[in-house]
Amino acid sequence: VPLVVVKMIEGRTVEQKRRLAREITDVVMRVTNVTEDHVDVIIEDYSRENWAKAGTLFADK
Amino acid sequence: VPLVVVKMIEGRTVEQKRRLAREITDVVMRVTNVTEDHVDVIIEDYSRENWAKAGTLFADK
Amino acid sequence: VPLVVVKMIEGRTVEQKRRLAREITDVVMRVTNVTEDHVDVIIEDYSRENWAKAGTLFADK
Amino acid sequence: VPLVVVKMIEGRTVEQKRRLAREITDVVMRVTNVTEDHVDVIIEDYSRENWAKAGTLFADK
Amino acid sequence: VPLVVVKMIEGRTVEQKRRLAREITDVVMRVTNVTEDHVDVIIEDYSRENWAKAGTLFADK
Amino acid sequence: VPLVVVKMIEGRTVEQKRRLAREITDVVMRVTNVTEDHVDVIIEDYSRENWAKAGTLFADK
Repeated sequence: VPLVVVKMIEGRTVEQKRRLAREITDVVMRVTNVTEDHVDVIIEDYSRENWAKAGTLFADK
Repeated sequence: VPLVVVKMIEGRTVEQKRRLAREITDVVMRVTNVTEDHVDVIIEDYSRENWAKAGTLFADK
Repeated sequence: VPLVVVKMIEGRTVEQKRRLAREITDVVMRVTNVTEDHVDVIIEDYSRENWAKAGTLFADK
Repeated sequence: VPLVVVKMIEGRTVEQKRRLAREITDVVMRVTNVTEDHVDVIIEDYSRENWAKAGTLFADK
Repeated sequence: VPLVVVKMIEGRTVEQKRRLAREITDVVMRVTNVTEDHVDVIIEDYSRENWAKAGTLFADK
Repeated sequence: VPLVVVKMIEGRTVEQKRRLAREITDVVMRVTNVTEDHVDVIIEDYSRENWAKAGTLFADK
């Protein structure tokens, strides 16, 4: 409360995930006036055969 | 915008995912009058131990 | 099983939702070889102040 | 209808998932007056590098 | 952590939601060995024109 | 791609949503090296009777 879900193509490093979690949490705290222990960030990685844009899988682009 | 998420049991081939992405995108374009570059399709595969129907995991059926 | 979630900006008519549900179900049946009673389609409408692209809410575009 | 999605850190055993599915289904049946074949339970496992609380990934705690 | 999302057709009373939240939380605590303050339950209500089974909106059944 | 979903209790102002969308988009661009037109942010508001923590609805706290 709040909970943030980030859906993206797999391949980001742990360091990138660490920064996403830290910096998105900071934004949510600052804008919604909650303390950081109220913020969860979940990252969902998708393989390139599981995400399509404009009807074409990223695996086929 | 729109975004379509398809949740299903794992095991579909890439060709099936390719067709799902293509044909669902075509439906969404036609019905909602958007161009194809506005449509994302995400596929979420679940293992048989992570989906239950009527209280029983598919892994146990 | 499968379950399809369509996220889009509010404002579509019931007839458009009816067609989306019918035609997406048909695609999923045909491509994944399940009978139609196994397919659920859920539509999630978002107000224009709840969806942003490129950092800008649709309400502000 | 209803559909229950359980998001949690990976590492639960199949027996724990089996019990979650069975017991959550029983709760939903009892409280909402549906038969068990109307209830789906989906479990989503997240790795410790994909979930952060208070800005810190579980992988770093 | 864990987080449970219950998707269902609108129309349940607050008392039913209260019981769902309480009893699902109890199941999750017992099965996964977490304390109750770690469990969130979110309920998502869908109108009958936003959920279809077997290709037909509940609004049309 | 990426897509960010923010789930929170209803009651935030449009200005808060505007800032969330803008600042989360900036974080995602900077950390994952994508241009801003690739980032979508969706906000999901929940009423206080649809979110429970520790087994108790926010409506009852």
